[in-house]
Amino acid sequence: MSNILEGKVLVAQGGGPTAVINQSVVGVIREARNYPQVTHIYGALNGVSGIINERFLDLTDVSDANLEAVANSPSSGLLSTRDKPDEAYCKKIFAVCKTHNIRYFFYCGGNDSADTCRIVSEMGKKVGYDMRVVHVPKTIDNDLRVTDHCPGYGSAAKFVAQAFAGADLDNRSLPGVYIGVVMGRDAGFLVAASALGRKYEDDGPHLIYLPERTFSMKQFCEDVKAVYEKFGRCVVAVSEGIKNAEGLPVVTEYIGIVRDHHNNVQLSGSGSLGDALADYIKKNTEIDRVRADTLGYLQRSFLGCVSEVDQVEARTVGEVAVRHALRHGQDGSVVMERVANYAISYRLAPLQDVARLTKPFPNNFINEAGNDVTEDFITYARPLVGTLEQAYHLDAPLVPVQR
Amino acid sequence: MSNILEGKVLVAQGGGPTAVINQSVVGVIREARNYPQVTHIYGALNGVSGIINERFLDLTDVSDANLEAVANSPSSGLLSTRDKPDEAYCKKIFAVCKTHNIRYFFYCGGNDSADTCRIVSEMGKKVGYDMRVVHVPKTIDNDLRVTDHCPGYGSAAKFVAQAFAGADLDNRSLPGVYIGVVMGRDAGFLVAASALGRKYEDDGPHLIYLPERTFSMKQFCEDVKAVYEKFGRCVVAVSEGIKNAEGLPVVTEYIGIVRDHHNNVQLSGSGSLGDALADYIKKNTEIDRVRADTLGYLQRSFLGCVSEVDQVEARTVGEVAVRHALRHGQDGSVVMERVANYAISYRLAPLQDVARLTKPFPNNFINEAGNDVTEDFITYARPLVGTLEQAYHLDAPLVPVQR
Repeated sequence: MSNILEGKVLVAQGGGPTAVINQSVVGVIREARNYPQVTHIYGALNGVSGIINERFLDLTDVSDANLEAVANSPSSGLLSTRDKPDEAYCKKIFAVCKTHNIRYFFYCGGNDSADTCRIVSEMGKKVGYDMRVVHVPKTIDNDLRVTDHCPGYGSAAKFVAQAFAGADLDNRSLPGVYIGVVMGRDAGFLVAASALGRKYEDDGPHLIYLPERTFSMKQFCEDVKAVYEKFGRCVVAVSEGIKNAEGLPVVTEYIGIVRDHHNNVQLSGSGSLGDALADYIKKNTEIDRVRADTLGYLQRSFLGCVSEVDQVEARTVGEVAVRHALRHGQDGSVVMERVANYAISYRLAPLQDVARLTKPFPNNFINEAGNDVTEDFITYARPLVGTLEQAYHLDAPLVPVQR
Repeated sequence: MSNILEGKVLVAQGGGPTAVINQSVVGVIREARNYPQVTHIYGALNGVSGIINERFLDLTDVSDANLEAVANSPSSGLLSTRDKPDEAYCKKIFAVCKTHNIRYFFYCGGNDSADTCRIVSEMGKKVGYDMRVVHVPKTIDNDLRVTDHCPGYGSAAKFVAQAFAGADLDNRSLPGVYIGVVMGRDAGFLVAASALGRKYEDDGPHLIYLPERTFSMKQFCEDVKAVYEKFGRCVVAVSEGIKNAEGLPVVTEYIGIVRDHHNNVQLSGSGSLGDALADYIKKNTEIDRVRADTLGYLQRSFLGCVSEVDQVEARTVGEVAVRHALRHGQDGSVVMERVANYAISYRLAPLQDVARLTKPFPNNFINEAGNDVTEDFITYARPLVGTLEQAYHLDAPLVPVQR
């Protein structure tokens, strides 16, 4: 048994939380307990920042009951971070891992977290410290490479689908224009999910705008007017990341360019884009009831909206990550391959194939006018959200007017 | 049987929709089918406006399966209206009722709908046209008089409680200040419900601002700073209707006074208040991560968040309304009286006791500092939301630092 690496397992979560990211961590913990070479299981608090500050929870003896309760809770039970480690940061991570004899590191996050895994993995090889590093995928944006889709997306997509299904019924009962702004900096996957709740022929959203197409305020207004003429109402789903002809987020035309710590333009946590779109419709049409909502953080954190498919997949990527590292001694990123209709086969991809870069929203998922999704998208996304709540209209005849 | 009034039943829905307003309509329809004097059951489309325009659905033969499917769908299946009838409008309602031999009219709505019922009921008595009129209560604002609470409130309260429970977990994982703006023009019942999801000692919302107390931006900022110092983060629930020292909605200081058709200041369908509060905190503190969400229409329309207690009560007020009108020949407004802990006794109140006026949020539900609710409120509201989703923290010890 000399080639079996004895030491600690470390697990951490990075980036924006999801409804099922705790499933992945619990998948890691429960699978890791099966390997006798694991001396302890540590969880870093607040992702990589918890590693360099040595803020660890000892998860070795946490009860299964508590683990399962946390698995069913949204957001990151180990807390998160926006830190994106560079070489110097990774050196610190590495030093702490050596101090604690951490030999297996599982980092649950998006493409930046995959990149952290890549740097740490390469560093280990370079200095000869034997440590397995596996990236466990998650992101509501669904924009990771190689994998068919990402854990976290299905549940956020379900929230968005049910939010628009409800908003559409609301708009039907009190007609006007309703605009809902959906998360997704560069990828249209989440706003596209607004289409998944449509059932009856005139169900909204009637228009969907994605960051992958240039947004024109004038064309938007024309589109809304056309729908309003047809149905006497209009429900619109808009990505927070829609871009103008200069390639800048439309929202920057209204609030200027506000940047976060990573120099990204801040898109979430403000109602400005929705308000600007609503104002434009009010000023340039005769429609007087125009309302805008920004779905905000509820999309990723609402307690009580989760895809059961997403839950199982998120659990499994954690479990598979540990198996690859502890049974097979491999580094990499867990990816999901779609087989049959619908099943998933899990495998490990090289870290460099997943790190940093993102996957674009496919062209065949967007209609020609650039204001809706196609059936190809529905076919792709429908299995991921699991059971969708259903709403029904009254099935009753109109009474002839007696006058 | 000469004293039994033969004719049609008419049911309609008015005002903002709720998650359970269709339950009440289905309660009316299914109970009305038990009375042989009912010749037809009509549903007016878009509330009272559907009456004066004679836009009726014939609900007499709708399948039970369809009725139950609609009962479980949020928003108004018969569509709604913002029309608030005056005497002249009620005369038109009355004329159409006579034309169609409508003898039983059930109107599901808030205090304005109760007032419509009152006018129509009095009109019938004056001109000697025998028609029973019963108001069926609903409103997410929970501000109707006489009744212990209103159908619709429990489900909206559940949405708000679960939204803040999730947002609090999100804020815990990526700390900063989170501000969530909640519906409720004049009544704090809905924003108060944000407290119902708190479980662990440091759970948010840490501050709750209601329209019943004067809002001071300076005090708000001091409150946030104090919480942030204690917990390193702060979650705030704010009513859209918070008012300044002049008694004007705070939002009017930022967007001016925009009025809707009823000359009410528009509060919903805009992110302005949340953005203004967030800006103030950013400018007047050292805290750099400050985010604001406006929960918007999802609070009353989200598909898939409903209180099972609210469902049963909404069904029952519809059923009880019909029984009073058809079995006992009474006009009035159905009210719920709380008995035991927890059960409801249903009875009929005079229309004039419920019409027009609203119930204030009780003083003993607000803490002394005016920035939170009391245990009295929790005791009052907790039974109404039914089963709440639960979230859990990891129960694991911190690892001692090795440096």
